[in-house]
Amino acid sequence: IANNNNDGLHTLLEEVHYADVAEIIEELYIEEAIYLIKLLDSDITSDVITELDEDTREKVLKGLSSKEIAEEIDELDTDDAADIIAELPEDQKEEVISHIEDLEHAKEIVELLKYDENTAGGLMAKELVKVNENWNVLTCVKEMRAQAEEVTRVHSIYVVDEHDKLKGRLSLKDLLTTSTKTAIKDVFIKKVDSVNVNDKGEEVARIMQKYDLEAIPVVDEIGRLVGRITIDDIVDVIKEEAEKDYQMAAGISQDVEADDTIWELTKARLPWLVLALFGGFISVSVLGGFDDAMGNFPELFFFTPLIAAMAGNVGVQSSAIIVQGLANDSLRGSLWKRLLKEVLLSLFNGFVLAILLMSAGMYFLGFDFKVGLTVAISLISVIIIASLIGTFVPIILDKRNIDPALATGPFITTSNDIFGILIYFLIAKMILGF
Amino acid sequence: IANNNNDGLHTLLEEVHYADVAEIIEELYIEEAIYLIKLLDSDITSDVITELDEDTREKVLKGLSSKEIAEEIDELDTDDAADIIAELPEDQKEEVISHIEDLEHAKEIVELLKYDENTAGGLMAKELVKVNENWNVLTCVKEMRAQAEEVTRVHSIYVVDEHDKLKGRLSLKDLLTTSTKTAIKDVFIKKVDSVNVNDKGEEVARIMQKYDLEAIPVVDEIGRLVGRITIDDIVDVIKEEAEKDYQMAAGISQDVEADDTIWELTKARLPWLVLALFGGFISVSVLGGFDDAMGNFPELFFFTPLIAAMAGNVGVQSSAIIVQGLANDSLRGSLWKRLLKEVLLSLFNGFVLAILLMSAGMYFLGFDFKVGLTVAISLISVIIIASLIGTFVPIILDKRNIDPALATGPFITTSNDIFGILIYFLIAKMILGF
Repeated sequence: IANNNNDGLHTLLEEVHYADVAEIIEELYIEEAIYLIKLLDSDITSDVITELDEDTREKVLKGLSSKEIAEEIDELDTDDAADIIAELPEDQKEEVISHIEDLEHAKEIVELLKYDENTAGGLMAKELVKVNENWNVLTCVKEMRAQAEEVTRVHSIYVVDEHDKLKGRLSLKDLLTTSTKTAIKDVFIKKVDSVNVNDKGEEVARIMQKYDLEAIPVVDEIGRLVGRITIDDIVDVIKEEAEKDYQMAAGISQDVEADDTIWELTKARLPWLVLALFGGFISVSVLGGFDDAMGNFPELFFFTPLIAAMAGNVGVQSSAIIVQGLANDSLRGSLWKRLLKEVLLSLFNGFVLAILLMSAGMYFLGFDFKVGLTVAISLISVIIIASLIGTFVPIILDKRNIDPALATGPFITTSNDIFGILIYFLIAKMILGF
Repeated sequence: IANNNNDGLHTLLEEVHYADVAEIIEELYIEEAIYLIKLLDSDITSDVITELDEDTREKVLKGLSSKEIAEEIDELDTDDAADIIAELPEDQKEEVISHIEDLEHAKEIVELLKYDENTAGGLMAKELVKVNENWNVLTCVKEMRAQAEEVTRVHSIYVVDEHDKLKGRLSLKDLLTTSTKTAIKDVFIKKVDSVNVNDKGEEVARIMQKYDLEAIPVVDEIGRLVGRITIDDIVDVIKEEAEKDYQMAAGISQDVEADDTIWELTKARLPWLVLALFGGFISVSVLGGFDDAMGNFPELFFFTPLIAAMAGNVGVQSSAIIVQGLANDSLRGSLWKRLLKEVLLSLFNGFVLAILLMSAGMYFLGFDFKVGLTVAISLISVIIIASLIGTFVPIILDKRNIDPALATGPFITTSNDIFGILIYFLIAKMILGF
């Protein structure tokens, strides 16, 4: 469509929501996408650009001049604007900022660029509605109307003192139902949750979820109101957090997507595989140390992958439950009680699996009773040890302020493989005596 | 504290946010919790009860009479009220509903109970602000004030016709800035996103995220406005969705928490372990089929856990990326291109790992060149096959409308173990000829 220069395209896309336009652009060739962005008005395209995938956005912005980018930025809320400028190459940042027409807007964006993107400061927008505690309702409504022009969604009205310090909040509802001469001092709600600019994104997410907030004001070190964070930005934080844990559990160390380049995917995946390979070497050496057994009990070696797999699976299960518990802050009770519970759980699961294994192994594969018993006892022991490692390691990491999600995935499967095989052959040696 | 009956407790807890009270209650013995709930007013405790963990809530509600539960319900929004009633035993439900004082409220709750909890109908609340398109701004503001009493947060004002059919929405901002005599017909926004009562929760989450909505109206089959869903309920859906995928990847089939009973944890974990055990049996048989090799090449058997582990890790990595891509609806391009990319990626990773393996294996473990080469070639082949299985299976499952997350975790590691070992020994047989 984009090849035949159309004015109809213009009117066609004006009716469509920007998120849908962004989806269409993702499907186009990059030249077509840039052509389309230049064709449309920047009050539409600015939102489209924020919705684009990071890779596509980078390419599209390369096709625009600094002045054109500044025009898009002019239309955006400060938080989205700062995010886009942060992605630009260092030398282009200043050029784009210097082209922003609204100087107040530019100043606010520059201020936001100071903050780390994973902190409350990096998430917040400068757009908010605030009133002075010394005003009355009438002044307040007038001021609010002016401020509300800039703000897409109002949520809460924040009340500050003459030094801009956050004092409380005002509900729209109360404002609608109070006489216009009442002083704000007398009607505002003095309790208001707030976060500090330096608080971590996850912490903000936790607070907003716990108290079911849709927006939260952000204050600086001395309590001055500097911005606010809305729930839609927090939804992204929550999603990324959950996805990161999942990727870690799968042995992927960076935030990659299926459509990233082979090189980026390799960077995220190969380190874990190298780790697993070295773990594998250790298990090779362990097995090599028990080669006396090969003469009399070759069957033992057939069972090593089974034992290793069970150890890995149990470890991943245990660690996943702990990691989620830590992420949701829902772990209660003492460590010892937790470990005892894991032992009981593993004993029970282990017995069921051992009975299945013995009956099936002896019936279908015709192993003798002693070998079957050895494998069965090893299986129970391995399951218990694996579940203890899976429970213990993430808790220890968390206590040392290391992300416990590290302990899931390849790390836990590899170490459980090694321990599993070692325990298996030690038990076999004791019982069968080779 | 709770043992010495205190009136001070009352004033102490009145100042605390209900989410914090809920946290305190989780830490108490159940008798103390019930004592505390009875002590406090139901306008506080109703919110506390919704914040409690499901298990704790069940126990607390058992300690209250149907009349006491109904008093709590009276204070709640319809969606939270319906959720709590849905958790009660069948025979108690009607009794509690009959005790609700506000008959309109009771009627709305009964209506919500009809819907499946995973649909838009199950998520929505009946509380909303709606105005008739034939009113003028003044009538509208008056009506709104009355309705707003019932609604915690207003978000949007929905515009309906005389048959209650959803026609559009009205922004508070526009309402504040228009003359009071204007007809609603002339100011409302005719475009409004809405979902159907029968739409799935995930679908609602996808729409609200895509369009950055904070509330969405819900309509029935013939377009009548029946409720609205707010973003805080959707945050829970998004979190549950991500956690479910993670748990599936870890081989946990139900939504369990670390503090659930051993029996519940077993139900969620044991089936996957049984699956892995049977997979393990197959690999035992495969290995048993190659026992001729044991005489001349015992080293081959030492490498089986390494090969199996690499196959498992690669498979989990590939499938996790695909499952996340499917969940975020971000997979584009053809299946063949995707598979080709996986092959190239695996070839590259495989080569790096194979070189590491050969040099380390020959240098440290002193294997001869032919065995080292065999293991290295097998490793590359196994990685390619494992990544193809990891990519292909979730896509196929998704096409057949089965949750692709099923294909991660134990399922993929087990099948990749088997294929990995089989391919390894087949290649070894070809090269070494035993």
